[in-house]
Amino acid sequence: MTSAQKKAQAAVEYNAFLAVCPSRQLLDRISDKWVVLILCALGGDDSGETASTNAPRAMRYSELSRLLGGVSQKMLTQTLRSLERDGMLTRTVTPTVPVTVTYELTDLGLSLHDMTRGLRSWAQTHMSEVLAHRETYDARTT
Amino acid sequence: MTSAQKKAQAAVEYNAFLAVCPSRQLLDRISDKWVVLILCALGGDDSGETASTNAPRAMRYSELSRLLGGVSQKMLTQTLRSLERDGMLTRTVTPTVPVTVTYELTDLGLSLHDMTRGLRSWAQTHMSEVLAHRETYDARTT
Repeated sequence: MTSAQKKAQAAVEYNAFLAVCPSRQLLDRISDKWVVLILCALGGDDSGETASTNAPRAMRYSELSRLLGGVSQKMLTQTLRSLERDGMLTRTVTPTVPVTVTYELTDLGLSLHDMTRGLRSWAQTHMSEVLAHRETYDARTT
Repeated sequence: MTSAQKKAQAAVEYNAFLAVCPSRQLLDRISDKWVVLILCALGGDDSGETASTNAPRAMRYSELSRLLGGVSQKMLTQTLRSLERDGMLTRTVTPTVPVTVTYELTDLGLSLHDMTRGLRSWAQTHMSEVLAHRETYDARTT
């Protein structure tokens, strides 16, 4: 590879506005409420009662299943597998009886968690405001 | 309402981990690639060629439609309407011939844009890393 070719390759940029760009598919994958909530859970955002509990941690499948209200076993399993495949979390099997399976964010997962924590927090913080806008909109259009 | 009741109401907190919490539905709504891309477009994140062009701006329907590769007219219209209903953008109709319809982020939309810009940017920045993880995973599991 010539120096010019190397330079050209380094300059390749992904652009999620383009339908054919691989980053569009990745954006679609991470724009998913279960992805957001799993990352928030493993990032330690649950409860939020005391800031001291908000640290990343390993969680068992059953813990995740309990924390994420309404998630089906199929959806949780599929989402965890795709996050493992993408390098966002590790899955560790400990040979207890029965076996213990734990999930933990990688550095890559932690970097995405910065964004998903913000999304969940935004939804919770602005819920009342959004509800008020909906009322106004519905009153105006009906 | 007693002072104790007022206090209780003020303390109400939304929690998107709960299936029945309204913020779960809002999180689901904003965890959507078209929502992310529309906010990025109106937030001025396209091109990215020069930082100086990255400022929020009003856009016509046709401009959005061109920028968001692969979006159907139905999907774009529905998503814009739901974002308008939620108070994230304004829709302005100017009586030209034919009429001009422009969309612009509100302050609420701008606050969410901080997060969606991060999501799109994350997908673009970490694409190569994710692709490498997928290769490793697929080689290990097949």
